[in-house]
Amino acid sequence: MWYTNFGPSGDIVLSSRVRLARNISKIPFGNKMSDADLEKIESICKDALPELKFIDLSKMSVFERLALKENHLISPEMADEKKSGSILVNDDCTLSILIGEEDHLRIQAMDSGLSLEKCMQLANQIDDRLDKKADFAFSDELGYLTCCPSNTGTGLRASVMMHLPALTQTCKMESIIRSLSKLGIAVRGIYGEGSTALANIYQISNQVTLGISEEDSLSRLSQIVDDIIAKERSISLEIYQANKFRLEDKILRSKGILQNARIITSGEALSLISDVRWGINLGIIKDINHEQLLSALYESFPATIAKNHNTSSPLERDLKRGEIFQKVLKSN
Amino acid sequence: MWYTNFGPSGDIVLSSRVRLARNISKIPFGNKMSDADLEKIESICKDALPELKFIDLSKMSVFERLALKENHLISPEMADEKKSGSILVNDDCTLSILIGEEDHLRIQAMDSGLSLEKCMQLANQIDDRLDKKADFAFSDELGYLTCCPSNTGTGLRASVMMHLPALTQTCKMESIIRSLSKLGIAVRGIYGEGSTALANIYQISNQVTLGISEEDSLSRLSQIVDDIIAKERSISLEIYQANKFRLEDKILRSKGILQNARIITSGEALSLISDVRWGINLGIIKDINHEQLLSALYESFPATIAKNHNTSSPLERDLKRGEIFQKVLKSN
Repeated sequence: MWYTNFGPSGDIVLSSRVRLARNISKIPFGNKMSDADLEKIESICKDALPELKFIDLSKMSVFERLALKENHLISPEMADEKKSGSILVNDDCTLSILIGEEDHLRIQAMDSGLSLEKCMQLANQIDDRLDKKADFAFSDELGYLTCCPSNTGTGLRASVMMHLPALTQTCKMESIIRSLSKLGIAVRGIYGEGSTALANIYQISNQVTLGISEEDSLSRLSQIVDDIIAKERSISLEIYQANKFRLEDKILRSKGILQNARIITSGEALSLISDVRWGINLGIIKDINHEQLLSALYESFPATIAKNHNTSSPLERDLKRGEIFQKVLKSN
Repeated sequence: MWYTNFGPSGDIVLSSRVRLARNISKIPFGNKMSDADLEKIESICKDALPELKFIDLSKMSVFERLALKENHLISPEMADEKKSGSILVNDDCTLSILIGEEDHLRIQAMDSGLSLEKCMQLANQIDDRLDKKADFAFSDELGYLTCCPSNTGTGLRASVMMHLPALTQTCKMESIIRSLSKLGIAVRGIYGEGSTALANIYQISNQVTLGISEEDSLSRLSQIVDDIIAKERSISLEIYQANKFRLEDKILRSKGILQNARIITSGEALSLISDVRWGINLGIIKDINHEQLLSALYESFPATIAKNHNTSSPLERDLKRGEIFQKVLKSN
């Protein structure tokens, strides 16, 4: 899967995502949409994109839905809600079209590392193909019409997932978050809105969709991400130079625990993984690579474990998580 | 060296020691002994035991003395004091004769595991050879005369070093110590009198030297040690059965830290080593054996590190200790 690959600037950027919010004319928006409306939208999408796999969320267990969320294929809202909804996904899961989320359609394109343009291209292709079959709600004055006014205009939200241990440790994230917010850029935790920054991973995304072109939106975000990458890299080296032994000790202990513990909670795993990632970047850890770590990270999310291994209790999951790390993080 | 070998009942017993306190007639005891007296005793011993290596402690640095203490070749008193004194040792360091400690002579025989009889034999041989050259202070009524009345009689102190994590964890050591004390058996930390039990290691020794034969003294101690071994083994299994995953987790984490940490203090090392030893005994750890662990333990004592690696600060020693564990505890 794309999310275990090491992409461009993969030392800092885990993944990129572009999503387009779209609604279809003459079908009621949001809560007013009926089950029959939903089926109509699904049928338009299947017709326009026959090669994609259709997944009906209402036929899935809670853990299966949550596992889709952990793999970024659906939003947290779609995982938690009991309401109907469905998705269309491609083979490598870089594309997922959420049907019946807040808007009729959310076209999501994702890839590893800093790859906003690649994601934008894929999303645009799909948008064009859907546009031929569906009459999208569009105003010449405002642009694409959406359920929530915050998405109206381009309907574009682009985001990158960044791992920023050095900026976090030196308490620089707060001021970065403040100044980015003034530029219309939001900083959130790993699962978007409302989620806290676990494992020093932050989601950086554009907020402005009105009165700006898609291209400008994307290039502004890219510029900001490049700046943050440069800052993180330079402060990371500063910290290492100033505290070589202590930092090596902290990072190597985390590696030792991650490779040996029998019982690991999800929270502890994220914190240990953050240390090990940092250690790989600084050259402190040479016998584990980013791909291994990403693979262990995604395999060890709670719902993914529950789904893959049919575990029934938190202790069973924590034990299985220990097994996964021991297996995946074997020294090279 | 003997102390890194896995001896009889080596899962629980690290080492055994027998020491005989002897004084020479017509030479003043204790503080009243002059430098000339000391030289006279040294000369008698060298003459009687020409194959042994003579070490003059007054010519050694503090770290060299402390390293001898860490290897059990001299007592803590001889390491700390600035007063003169010397030892005679054999090639494999199973024998050391302390000259000018509290008594004129202390004949020490040591070996790995539970091997009190073997130690007694060696000590007796040396005692006999010295007896031919020296006129030992002896009373038909009391036995061998010593500086402190607590040693008068046999002059024998036999001790075993036991690793008792299960009895410690279940808080059973206190009552064991109390009841052994009534039987004339003392329980102390790893370096004898006054030292606390680090790493769940206890020194069990006989206290009665008057009105008892050497053989009875030894067989009583052996019996008690056998009882404690049986108790430790059975409680250890009980704990493991009741808390399998939690105990495995604790032990494997300790192993992971010991194999990976960059900076380890002496105190932390002892506590981690205790867990790993226990893990080897329970079959939880299979890629490290007791010999490796004992070798790392003895190599990583503070003064031994200072002496072998010429370190000057505690941080340097803690870094070197990390290196030693990484090197010695490489998975088999």
